[in-house]
Amino acid sequence: MKEQAMIPVAILGASGYTGVELVRWLIHHPQVRLAALGASTHAGKSLSDIFPALTGLALPMLQKTEEIDWQHIQLVFCCLPHHTSQTIIATLPEHLQIIDLSADFRLKDKAVYEKWYGAHDAAHLLESAVYGLTEYARPALKGARLIANPGCYPTCSLLALLPIIQDIDVSQIMIDAKSGVSGAGRTLRESSLAAEVQEGVQAYSIGGHRHQPEIEQELSFIAKKPLTITFTPHLMPFNRGMLATIYVKTDLNAEAVQKKLHARYHAEPFVHVLPLGTAASTRFVKGSNHCHISLHQGCRPGQVILCSVIDNVGKGASTQAIQNMNVQQGWLETLGLQGLGVFP
Amino acid sequence: MKEQAMIPVAILGASGYTGVELVRWLIHHPQVRLAALGASTHAGKSLSDIFPALTGLALPMLQKTEEIDWQHIQLVFCCLPHHTSQTIIATLPEHLQIIDLSADFRLKDKAVYEKWYGAHDAAHLLESAVYGLTEYARPALKGARLIANPGCYPTCSLLALLPIIQDIDVSQIMIDAKSGVSGAGRTLRESSLAAEVQEGVQAYSIGGHRHQPEIEQELSFIAKKPLTITFTPHLMPFNRGMLATIYVKTDLNAEAVQKKLHARYHAEPFVHVLPLGTAASTRFVKGSNHCHISLHQGCRPGQVILCSVIDNVGKGASTQAIQNMNVQQGWLETLGLQGLGVFP
Amino acid sequence: MKEQAMIPVAILGASGYTGVELVRWLIHHPQVRLAALGASTHAGKSLSDIFPALTGLALPMLQKTEEIDWQHIQLVFCCLPHHTSQTIIATLPEHLQIIDLSADFRLKDKAVYEKWYGAHDAAHLLESAVYGLTEYARPALKGARLIANPGCYPTCSLLALLPIIQDIDVSQIMIDAKSGVSGAGRTLRESSLAAEVQEGVQAYSIGGHRHQPEIEQELSFIAKKPLTITFTPHLMPFNRGMLATIYVKTDLNAEAVQKKLHARYHAEPFVHVLPLGTAASTRFVKGSNHCHISLHQGCRPGQVILCSVIDNVGKGASTQAIQNMNVQQGWLETLGLQGLGVFP
Amino acid sequence: MKEQAMIPVAILGASGYTGVELVRWLIHHPQVRLAALGASTHAGKSLSDIFPALTGLALPMLQKTEEIDWQHIQLVFCCLPHHTSQTIIATLPEHLQIIDLSADFRLKDKAVYEKWYGAHDAAHLLESAVYGLTEYARPALKGARLIANPGCYPTCSLLALLPIIQDIDVSQIMIDAKSGVSGAGRTLRESSLAAEVQEGVQAYSIGGHRHQPEIEQELSFIAKKPLTITFTPHLMPFNRGMLATIYVKTDLNAEAVQKKLHARYHAEPFVHVLPLGTAASTRFVKGSNHCHISLHQGCRPGQVILCSVIDNVGKGASTQAIQNMNVQQGWLETLGLQGLGVFP
Repeated sequence: MKEQAMIPVAILGASGYTGVELVRWLIHHPQVRLAALGASTHAGKSLSDIFPALTGLALPMLQKTEEIDWQHIQLVFCCLPHHTSQTIIATLPEHLQIIDLSADFRLKDKAVYEKWYGAHDAAHLLESAVYGLTEYARPALKGARLIANPGCYPTCSLLALLPIIQDIDVSQIMIDAKSGVSGAGRTLRESSLAAEVQEGVQAYSIGGHRHQPEIEQELSFIAKKPLTITFTPHLMPFNRGMLATIYVKTDLNAEAVQKKLHARYHAEPFVHVLPLGTAASTRFVKGSNHCHISLHQGCRPGQVILCSVIDNVGKGASTQAIQNMNVQQGWLETLGLQGLGVFP
Repeated sequence: MKEQAMIPVAILGASGYTGVELVRWLIHHPQVRLAALGASTHAGKSLSDIFPALTGLALPMLQKTEEIDWQHIQLVFCCLPHHTSQTIIATLPEHLQIIDLSADFRLKDKAVYEKWYGAHDAAHLLESAVYGLTEYARPALKGARLIANPGCYPTCSLLALLPIIQDIDVSQIMIDAKSGVSGAGRTLRESSLAAEVQEGVQAYSIGGHRHQPEIEQELSFIAKKPLTITFTPHLMPFNRGMLATIYVKTDLNAEAVQKKLHARYHAEPFVHVLPLGTAASTRFVKGSNHCHISLHQGCRPGQVILCSVIDNVGKGASTQAIQNMNVQQGWLETLGLQGLGVFP
Repeated sequence: MKEQAMIPVAILGASGYTGVELVRWLIHHPQVRLAALGASTHAGKSLSDIFPALTGLALPMLQKTEEIDWQHIQLVFCCLPHHTSQTIIATLPEHLQIIDLSADFRLKDKAVYEKWYGAHDAAHLLESAVYGLTEYARPALKGARLIANPGCYPTCSLLALLPIIQDIDVSQIMIDAKSGVSGAGRTLRESSLAAEVQEGVQAYSIGGHRHQPEIEQELSFIAKKPLTITFTPHLMPFNRGMLATIYVKTDLNAEAVQKKLHARYHAEPFVHVLPLGTAASTRFVKGSNHCHISLHQGCRPGQVILCSVIDNVGKGASTQAIQNMNVQQGWLETLGLQGLGVFP
Repeated sequence: MKEQAMIPVAILGASGYTGVELVRWLIHHPQVRLAALGASTHAGKSLSDIFPALTGLALPMLQKTEEIDWQHIQLVFCCLPHHTSQTIIATLPEHLQIIDLSADFRLKDKAVYEKWYGAHDAAHLLESAVYGLTEYARPALKGARLIANPGCYPTCSLLALLPIIQDIDVSQIMIDAKSGVSGAGRTLRESSLAAEVQEGVQAYSIGGHRHQPEIEQELSFIAKKPLTITFTPHLMPFNRGMLATIYVKTDLNAEAVQKKLHARYHAEPFVHVLPLGTAASTRFVKGSNHCHISLHQGCRPGQVILCSVIDNVGKGASTQAIQNMNVQQGWLETLGLQGLGVFP
């Protein structure tokens, strides 16, 4: 069914959750051929041994990154941990286009990066990397060599805030965010064990989560001044889904904010502004590249509350990476991304 | 992107879980146009008001069944409760092709139906209705007017058992089945409340579930003799997914059973026999039309254990209905059904 | 094991979640004898038919409220819906002591009550009713005839806020709260179905939840001025547990707030201030009468974040009602309430 | 509140799930004083740092096993992994009474142990160790030095089967069991991660789980002949609770089996036979030492189905250990174990 024009693609870190999600979508993408799947400890296995959801597909075997023959690859999705990512990307041949799902090229200021993540060994690439919040980056994405795919919390928060950043008091933005546990990845930690995640809730990284400077960077670009937000993430007892409950101070009422957002997004295929009276729920975007935003009048004068939901593995990671690829390559932006939220 | 040849389709009972699942897939099906959505209490609303996952789609408004103009419909998916289904189907114009997701036309013997479900008022249609376990019904499905879409438990169980029915002691089949709560539908019952479903497990309808005669009917057709199975369903604290753990007595060992199943299914697009040593998990078929079957040697001589998993809303209901439609219409069987299991 | 001095107690609305939770604790309370259990639709049944957790106990049969012989009852826990509660309480004999778990007697101002809940038909009792946030109401609780047991969100929020109300900007309090689904009760609603609650999250009653005026009332009593808070509740996909993430503006840093709270609560048996660096989790108070509060420095100058957790059915409802009874009767406050959080 | 006669108790492996559960109950046990808590990696910490549910209690600090002063300990609960357990128990001073929650002393036949668990280095203790299924071991438990606390699956299965072992075909016992994930312990494994446990189900160790020989051993003791059962465990997406769905062949009908079980258990404080028509649910025993058993007529002649539920961390581990201690010490068997199932 696929055409000749398909480009050969590699995924590094394919055996993690964002990797398997990329494969789930790309396997049926009409312009892409999965040519190499990189992994470290799992090299030599079939990806379907780890994730039987992929059973029956003709996939390349997992191989070590250093054994990939880059001559036959055109595009790389990099799903490696931060720092590992920059080290490998710095050594990749020039002809490769790269979409990096790590945090390594999201922050423009090396000092800010190093404060939150430690030393940066490929800082010379920071300037040219395109921050890939697709709806706001199309011109730069087109033909880009290196795309920094945004973090999940920033994606969820920025899509709600950017259209109204001129209308709100930027010194008073508060984001109380909730994420499914897949966001913690496949790393073994006691805090990720089912018995410690199910059946309860708690906040984490309070007052100091790494996605905060990323949100602040993008907001301040548009607001044209530095700003500090309040950002508190919470770990949810489900796999997929993210909700940002955002409190802003503004002269607009909820209806006016809704109109602004609707004006900005009504032609967007993946961002939907819900009618007043409906609260956005993660349940309706699970498994998709869609973002829903709902608007609500707060109790205080001048307070509006925005609820923004995405799938943290989807629009918050892998499907936004595919959306970015589509723009980068000049293809139809929705190509291969038609799936709707899986409900119930 | 869709072609001229698209056929106009109606869904009755669109505001239930199988209805919204049908819409999720059909909206991107290249040969289908959703022309009418029937509902009772919700008539007059938009389906996306109830299920915001459908936000942004151009869907017909929900309308009462009796108000649908059948002249412009070619195919009907009927997602109504049993008995309601037969009543309406009996009155539908002759030109309509019907895929019924209720139990009304699955049991061939009116007496058996009436024992388990009460009076049947459209029994004259029983004989011509095609039992739509797709992989076993293709010739009859082609061009059929009325297709009885199988129950979720029968689908899950039969796909594992049918290829080996000649090799096992049919008097000793035991099925211990587990289903996600979406199988209970959207009806309001205390036993479906989140606080009574989450965080625990229990069996139900022990020794007398309505899907038992359906499984027995299909097995006995192939075995060519009447048989009684043991069947015990359990309610699981998750939304989607079904596992049938099946215990059989056979002269074959697990490896031989695996080979038999593999021989039967290796060319099937939606049924996959897992390698020995892997246990089928519902997690890997969630949100898809796929079925995974794993084989295991039991502890007793001559005992083999089969684990069969499907998504109860997918292959157990709506996506199998679409697969049946594809065969009925003579289209490519996988058309519009390419999605893989959503993991994690 | 129980002594002669046990008092006869009735529970109205025993077949709801707060009712069964009361029974779970009171059955082993050394000073209480369960003498009558009121229910409406379930009258005539045994409570263990509905909740087999109570199997094996010698409990009175469920009976209609109007059939209870009040002469042999000394104390009543009223677990009825609001409005129903006031109607019945207004007619109860004078000798009865009443602990009401509904909202009917929490708001002192009839007009405020009627704005949020509709007409009040027993407003003459409002003044004498004691708002039973135990840790702040002991003198008034002792011997009280009518105790208004606080709402779950107010309990969770007030325990964190009251000790520092003089130290914070009361015009800037923001509470982003998360509650387990048991808080929605056993009423049949689509929004309480397992398939619509599990595996996702959403906010509800945004900008207008009935517990907001209750929190404001109590805060303003101490702050000695009217105030408006921001309060947004979220529905969580688990049964029990509540988290209030509270954002305040203050000249104190987190450490100083921690000291203040510790000074207030170090002698309290049920309220615990966690060490700095630990985030309160609902998992550790589930099934108990305990409240945990953690303190965190925010990102903005003068911002402190408080995480307060309780079991919404426990300290948020039934066990606080028992704690109130203990104080009312002059018993040891911890009597019958020794259970710790059930983890994992 | 506790009396002078309290005995000093140590818990080894206190920082696991069975350890914290022991502390939860023992802290309020009227005859016990927690004198030492052993741990390895966490030595030096407070147990409440790991499990804040224990905040506010006066507990000894975690210390390395080899640093415990055994002179001041009378009784040890051993919550260590198998093999580690036997190594340490073999070296403990003679005056200590030991309740071992590992598998090390459950199997009487060294060869059987070594087939399933590897070498046994303290096999000389096997003969004297008392298998502590309390309801069947009271005479031997009284004053015992070493008690082997049963496994969770054996406890759940044996309580249902033992009273009818003479009435059933022992060559045809089938147990399809389901356990909450806490049974996998706190060990870091990908298969225990929340994202791989939540929202799905699968069987594991099919045809070869270590609890199978333990069940067979105890059944064959009573049946007075060797036997092989079918036993298939499943991993459930919740924390606590275990269900054994047991299929037996018998000349008795469900009602007769119910009567037999009722006759055996009606005076037992912790084992309850449910009325016919009710299916046992794990939800109603969660957090308690109770076992519920329900009986159901199967579809085949001579088939009865038993549903047996316990809390795998409670009656399946820690609370049964306490029950055993109560009998061992000659105390009231229910001492400190009064809590009921936590529902919802």
